Amino acid sequence: MNPILKELKFDEDGLIPAIGQDYKNNEVLMFAFMNREAVEKTLKGPYATFWSRSRNKLWVKGEESGHTQEVKEVFYDCDGDVLLIKVDQKVAACHEGYRSCFFRKIEGDESKVIAKRLFDPKSTYKK
Amino acid sequence: MNPILKELKFDEDGLIPAIGQDYKNNEVLMFAFMNREAVEKTLKGPYATFWSRSRNKLWVKGEESGHTQEVKEVFYDCDGDVLLIKVDQKVAACHEGYRSCFFRKIEGDESKVIAKRLFDPKSTYKK
Repeated sequence: MNPILKELKFDEDGLIPAIGQDYKNNEVLMFAFMNREAVEKTLKGPYATFWSRSRNKLWVKGEESGHTQEVKEVFYDCDGDVLLIKVDQKVAACHEGYRSCFFRKIEGDESKVIAKRLFDPKSTYKK
Repeated sequence: MNPILKELKFDEDGLIPAIGQDYKNNEVLMFAFMNREAVEKTLKGPYATFWSRSRNKLWVKGEESGHTQEVKEVFYDCDGDVLLIKVDQKVAACHEGYRSCFFRKIEGDESKVIAKRLFDPKSTYKK
């Protein structure tokens, strides 16, 4: 086990939140969870690995779409309970086809899509 | 109630995670939680308001230190269960005196402080 994992606090489900950020322009791309194994795999590299809470399994980001995240730098916060992963994102992070999952902006009491779709989810995900 | 709150998913404790990001250079500053009231207050502005899970109360970021976050833009993710708040951060976001809470970088099996302390926590927080 990487001893750095002792510095991290995992919640009652054994998970730690992780923010994925573009290492070039600092755009926040996504937010997901990791268990200990996912953190170890991510630290080893080359690709960011998460824990899928819906599918209940390890998930190498991009394993189906090819939109992988090559890990560049990993940080943790003052409380040791959140990770920040700087990555080289292939194509797009969001399964809806946008570069970032944060493509909806709140303006007053409405929301607005502020990004362009980079791929068609229907042709990328077969399942 | 701002109708946009219907687009958001709050967890079983009534909370939604929020990432605080510097609106100028996109640095990720912090990660915390909001309840519905905190989201409404943050959307109204001018300052970002969170829910303190340790103190069990609403928390206007910077209310004690003066290190407030003026809200510039608010985004939510594809699943509607995470917020991204772009802010104008006064002085520093981290209670340990650093601009960002993510001031520790993992290198191999060690961690390294990669930022400069901007203030002394002992003189900023009286309690």
